[in-house]
This record gives sequence, structure tokens and C-alpha cells, in this order.
Amino acid sequence: MLVMKFCPLCGSHVSLKIPLDDNRERYVCDSCHAIHYENPRNVVGTIPIWKDQILLCKRAIEPRKGYWTLPAGFLETGESLINGALRETLEESGAQVEIGPLFSLVNVLHVDQIHVFYLAHMTSPSFQAGVESLEVALFDESNIPWDDLAFMTVIKTLKWYFADRKAGLLTANQAVVPHQDNIIAARK
Amino acid sequence: MLVMKFCPLCGSHVSLKIPLDDNRERYVCDSCHAIHYENPRNVVGTIPIWKDQILLCKRAIEPRKGYWTLPAGFLETGESLINGALRETLEESGAQVEIGPLFSLVNVLHVDQIHVFYLAHMTSPSFQAGVESLEVALFDESNIPWDDLAFMTVIKTLKWYFADRKAGLLTANQAVVPHQDNIIAARK
Repeated sequence: MLVMKFCPLCGSHVSLKIPLDDNRERYVCDSCHAIHYENPRNVVGTIPIWKDQILLCKRAIEPRKGYWTLPAGFLETGESLINGALRETLEESGAQVEIGPLFSLVNVLHVDQIHVFYLAHMTSPSFQAGVESLEVALFDESNIPWDDLAFMTVIKTLKWYFADRKAGLLTANQAVVPHQDNIIAARK
Repeated sequence: MLVMKFCPLCGSHVSLKIPLDDNRERYVCDSCHAIHYENPRNVVGTIPIWKDQILLCKRAIEPRKGYWTLPAGFLETGESLINGALRETLEESGAQVEIGPLFSLVNVLHVDQIHVFYLAHMTSPSFQAGVESLEVALFDESNIPWDDLAFMTVIKTLKWYFADRKAGLLTANQAVVPHQDNIIAARK
């Protein structure tokens, strides 16, 4: 749980207490009595695919600086999951992609995050490292730097991807969430 | 955007500014320079199904008090999407369900929320209104109170559900997100 000491609204001290009609401890302002809820955050990204290869980014920032990852980052206010995934892909890898179906959805409880990855097909083999990446490169399955991947959700997602590809499950590119309501911006 | 006036960490005033290496305005503390990010929140719920009927709850709280909804609420820290959906279903409707696949995923940009609904089969026709519900009832498709539904995401999800049922798409209860990593608690 994030440590909160002062009320963001009035600046008074807050205390951890269980509000009326609630069953969890929240930070509640001692003065204005505002209740400050905390909720998990979404990290959205893509599996950028070019022919048989996958695009990975070497992280230029902590955590896990120097390790490889799929392009992904925190969903911002005012954007859809897909637009967030497209934005992060462009920012971190410079790649333009056509977004595909939602592929993996992983609860990362110890940091209160949900990691969401979409399949994405690169529209050309061009890419370049953004400010949060040291390097960006295409990898064959045989060259994936498994021991140098940044996060467990990236390892899982890549393992699932290659297993599905081997099993022939990725040919039919159907929408795998039956009903997803997205706003695809001009960015795409 | 939420209004923040004081730093939750040190209690000093904050200002809206674009941090170095960023491209969006954030609340930054004038004194300790902490950056306070804001992110969308997830609302998770179920479509509780008993035979041909759907369980709906009449809201006892604002917003939309007195209107009907699918059981759903904010995902809490420390819980998976599925556990959140099960908890909200039990809290609001008293229904025990077997969770099914993810069915709908809707970006609600104007309130910075993502609404996530899972198919769920009730294990018995027993239910009761929780503290946030005035009334809970099973509805046939012909009796759904369309004009008295609480939220657009509930209307969309129910319309999609009945359209899919009519089209025979709900018989194969496959996982529709290929890879979802969930922690199903003892609660289920």
C-alpha cells in the first residue's frame, strides 16, 4: 500500500481507518474526512510481430534497467487500453503496428498492477529506441534472451505466444474478447 | 483529472507541470518534488446467469441510485480481476457463481474507468440484496428493464450477451482471452 501522510485535498494529516459501510482500511483525512482509495494500475503493451520475429526493447530506466522487455507502460487517464498499447509501442520502440486481439492478461498482485498485452503486426521493419530504451531489436524464437528478460509477465507472454504459434492457434486472428469497445485514435 | 492541492507525502503545495522526460502534466510537489501520477481504475463485475435468466441489482447508492445494474465495483489492491468480480457479485447480489470467460471490456474515458465483465453461472437460484443494493432479481430477456439500467456499459454488455445467445455463440464456453493468469481464492 502506498504511504499517504497528508490529505491531497486539504493538507491535513490522514489516518488509516475502515470507513462506515466499508470493510477495508483506507486513508481518511482527520480534518475534511475525505476517503482516499487506492486501486491497481494497468500496464498495457504489445507483442510487435514482423514475419517470424518479435520486437523487444532493452530498458534504459529502472526497474530492470538493461533487461529486455515487450514495449509496455502505464495506461494514462483519457486513453483506451488499445491506444495506450499503441502509444507505448511507438514511444519505446518507434514501431508502427496494426493492433490485433488481446492476448494475455496477468494479475501482478505484489505491485498492484494488471499487465495487458495485445498481438500487433508491424507495418514495416523500421524501429528505433525511444528515450526509455537503450536498444531495440527483432528476435527469432531461437534468439530470445530468456535469461535477460525484464519481467515475469513478459516471459509468460512470450512463452504463451511461441506455444500458440507452434500449435497453429495464431492463424485465425479473431477478436478474443468478444466485445471490446475501443477508441482507435488517429495515432494508428 | 482529480484535483490535488497538497503533496500526500510531505503536505506541501503541488503544482501541475510536465516533468523532465515526460510529455504530460502531472501534480509535482513544490517541496519534495515527488511526482503524483493518475491512472484509470478498473471496475469488475459479472453477468450472473441462472438458466435463461440474468441477475440484476437495483442500486442503493449514488451514482444512479434506484437504477438496475450488473453486480460490479472497483477492483481493490491485492486482488485479481476475477476475484474482484466474484467479491462484487457476492457483496451486491449475494449470489455464488462459477466464473466463466471474460465477456466485455469497455473503456469509459469520461470517468477514467475500464469496465470488465465476466460470464458467470449461478450455482443456485439464491440471492439477496447487499448493503449497496435495494433489490436483486432474476430477469428474462423480455423483462430486462432497459429504460432503467444504470450505466451504458451494462446496457452494451447485456445487448451483446443476448445477441450472442441468439446467435448460438455462448455454447462453447472457451477461454476468450487466450492467456489469463488468475488467482481464484477460496471465496469461490
